[in-house]
Amino acid sequence: MDKRTPTAINGNFKNKDIISLDQFSPKDLSFLFKVTKKMKAIAVNAKPSDILKGNIVTLVFYEPSSRTFGSFAGAVKQLGGQTIEIQDPQHFSSVSKGETLEDTIRVFEAYCDAIVIRHPVVGTVKQAADAAFFVPIINAGDGIGEHPTQALLDMYTIYEKFGKLDHLTGVMAGDLLNGRTVHSLMRGLSLYKNTTLYLLSPKELQLSREELQDCTKRGLKLIEITSEKDIPKNADFWYWTRVQKERFKAMEAYEKVKNKFVVTEKLVTERAGENTIIMHPLPRVGEIETTVDQDPRAVYLRSQIRNGMYVRMALLALVLGKI
Amino acid sequence: MDKRTPTAINGNFKNKDIISLDQFSPKDLSFLFKVTKKMKAIAVNAKPSDILKGNIVTLVFYEPSSRTFGSFAGAVKQLGGQTIEIQDPQHFSSVSKGETLEDTIRVFEAYCDAIVIRHPVVGTVKQAADAAFFVPIINAGDGIGEHPTQALLDMYTIYEKFGKLDHLTGVMAGDLLNGRTVHSLMRGLSLYKNTTLYLLSPKELQLSREELQDCTKRGLKLIEITSEKDIPKNADFWYWTRVQKERFKAMEAYEKVKNKFVVTEKLVTERAGENTIIMHPLPRVGEIETTVDQDPRAVYLRSQIRNGMYVRMALLALVLGKI
Amino acid sequence: MDKRTPTAINGNFKNKDIISLDQFSPKDLSFLFKVTKKMKAIAVNAKPSDILKGNIVTLVFYEPSSRTFGSFAGAVKQLGGQTIEIQDPQHFSSVSKGETLEDTIRVFEAYCDAIVIRHPVVGTVKQAADAAFFVPIINAGDGIGEHPTQALLDMYTIYEKFGKLDHLTGVMAGDLLNGRTVHSLMRGLSLYKNTTLYLLSPKELQLSREELQDCTKRGLKLIEITSEKDIPKNADFWYWTRVQKERFKAMEAYEKVKNKFVVTEKLVTERAGENTIIMHPLPRVGEIETTVDQDPRAVYLRSQIRNGMYVRMALLALVLGKI
Repeated sequence: MDKRTPTAINGNFKNKDIISLDQFSPKDLSFLFKVTKKMKAIAVNAKPSDILKGNIVTLVFYEPSSRTFGSFAGAVKQLGGQTIEIQDPQHFSSVSKGETLEDTIRVFEAYCDAIVIRHPVVGTVKQAADAAFFVPIINAGDGIGEHPTQALLDMYTIYEKFGKLDHLTGVMAGDLLNGRTVHSLMRGLSLYKNTTLYLLSPKELQLSREELQDCTKRGLKLIEITSEKDIPKNADFWYWTRVQKERFKAMEAYEKVKNKFVVTEKLVTERAGENTIIMHPLPRVGEIETTVDQDPRAVYLRSQIRNGMYVRMALLALVLGKI
Repeated sequence: MDKRTPTAINGNFKNKDIISLDQFSPKDLSFLFKVTKKMKAIAVNAKPSDILKGNIVTLVFYEPSSRTFGSFAGAVKQLGGQTIEIQDPQHFSSVSKGETLEDTIRVFEAYCDAIVIRHPVVGTVKQAADAAFFVPIINAGDGIGEHPTQALLDMYTIYEKFGKLDHLTGVMAGDLLNGRTVHSLMRGLSLYKNTTLYLLSPKELQLSREELQDCTKRGLKLIEITSEKDIPKNADFWYWTRVQKERFKAMEAYEKVKNKFVVTEKLVTERAGENTIIMHPLPRVGEIETTVDQDPRAVYLRSQIRNGMYVRMALLALVLGKI
Repeated sequence: MDKRTPTAINGNFKNKDIISLDQFSPKDLSFLFKVTKKMKAIAVNAKPSDILKGNIVTLVFYEPSSRTFGSFAGAVKQLGGQTIEIQDPQHFSSVSKGETLEDTIRVFEAYCDAIVIRHPVVGTVKQAADAAFFVPIINAGDGIGEHPTQALLDMYTIYEKFGKLDHLTGVMAGDLLNGRTVHSLMRGLSLYKNTTLYLLSPKELQLSREELQDCTKRGLKLIEITSEKDIPKNADFWYWTRVQKERFKAMEAYEKVKNKFVVTEKLVTERAGENTIIMHPLPRVGEIETTVDQDPRAVYLRSQIRNGMYVRMALLALVLGKI
């Protein structure tokens, strides 16, 4: 059996399943980000890369996600690899005939060198990784579970700007209760020392007590604030998130809080520093005014998205043993 | 900002958005068609091309169109490039969560070198082009608006046969009122001198007065005819079109006109010249009898379709600065 | 006209449509399997292949089939070729506007070097092959008709193990009445001498008298058995199949027979020989217990699937004249 359960990277990415951010140590991240930087150079450079030439990566998306799908497809192809793309396999005959996830994965792995999976149900990607005999499985988001490459791209975006992931001051805003990306990023940053995060959210959407205690225990300094006026000047980054409409049962409750905290030009002028970067995992629906988009500190529509592709390029090249 | 609004080609295709036929001068077309001829030689030749090696073109189709999709995908791949294919993004989570078109486009452009867009609503592709920061946008049809590459392939098909686009005699038949391809082709031909078009259609589907006056002002000589008997012998081309069922509210009205003018073997024998080419933008539903398909003058299932891919190859290579 | 009707391979695969297993003689199969073995070496080897570089194969799937789709896509890409992928073309505008299958195929063939078609209706792939002017058409399953590459992969799996396709003893089990793969495999094996097949199925799902007589006439020795106890020891292969729920009108009738014959560890221990291979065309829904999966004689999730890709690689390379 060639199969390895998802374990700590511990300096060796080759053939590892990538299921959770918990597999990465600061040293692993440091190495990954060094490779990511090289990948960026390759993508920006006009010369085509053959690093993944002859490699096939299968993208199995059980729920649609054009952003993540496009980013992974782009990552494979930027490196000269090819994809097999399976969307909505649950509507395909075999699954509808009662085939198990395990069998489905073992069929798909016969045609390729790695499988990227997106699934709406927590834990399914781990289950797929346990089923695969031969090829590594990469988690592209499993419901309210993990989406490790999103957290990695957020961390790389901060790292790229400041050259470090410790001794940072950040602002996390919006839906801190439900936002998966918020929790992942906080968990990632807690691997490093001396970081302070200001938490700005409507009362209804504050970080849960549990999560707050856990992150504090892990070493983050967390400060809850209730007004934009409390945002510290010269924070290293702002990480704004969407209030997730789909979490609300009553529309009035949603309407009440959805635009409570909005990044405006005025707010940027008043509270952001010269080097503050303004981040957002996207999609946004009004939390950042479009007039802010042109500000060079607004990285959400630029380097932050691009870094998603670069970090996925790095991960694929490492897992496939091509770097 | 790297962004350029869709402007006249004016001898320089590189990085230009391709939104409308109006961007092209006869000189631009002449150059494009010269490149198209080279592309045909590449596609027909067995040797693989690497002209777009390392380039990624994203195809975003907000409405299905297998013909145009396949043609663009083929164009990219014939030149050794790769595609990211996004179908029905409106059903993808981000858009359904309320993301703007502008943000969607800015996400997709992060992964590629150019974006081809098909959209059911007029003006949307121009809107996308205005949103994109970095990469050129190519219009693959925006509803009843424009579909510039269709017009270009029609013009190239005529040009390829006769070596010119002036001093031509053509017949336009079928639904001249609603046919987008008819209007585009007429607009394109009006850039050249001394062309006469015979317009044959049921009364209900005649060219609008407005369009007729406009094309006449642009220099086309237009002659409305009411019977196949009025088709001039030895016309250079026949351009037949489908009566668009979807435009009719009452089925009787549709049934009454749908097969009014049909290309039959008899008609070809009686009215077509030795060098007349018979064109149709497809799909057809009976306007040309299948017995005509084998006639070497019937180009609709042969060179006309192929030319669509060649002209798209040329356009992509030029816009991406690879030629 | 470059078009050839689907005829016997007769030693020459180039440009042939692949519609039916009946096109192959034992000599053709022998050659195909020799090439398949080479393809396996290419796929297993880390070095990328350029055998299909510059070739485009269009996959037109009128019904979803992730397994066959993935296998063909993988086959093309393993050899460095590219695909154009058209799923559900019946929902695309041209077909819904009333376009004939013939026109659709002639459009798609303009963009590529070969077309692989999956269609729910028997005979449609042959119809498409008759329509195509220029490129070869490959049948990826037409309803209850044929699925020749499935039969080829089953035969190759046996051939790979035993180095021959004659003088074999096999067990065919499950739904022998409706199973398309069963009939195809029997037809294929009937090309060779001295093979005995034991047929094990619920009474309701026995091989039809017609089929039994036909295969007997072709030279197979067929023995119907009614209990696992009648399975001969040391058979060369077991070919188990799924009872097809979708064939039953009443669920009780289905429930009654669905798990009548199941491959268990116990059964394997008691009745399989040291060299018996256990096959299944998949998907399975309980006919083989998952505890059997780890047995090296269980090839259904391993070499049998992989061989599907290898045999398709061989077929494509041969039909496209690249080997």
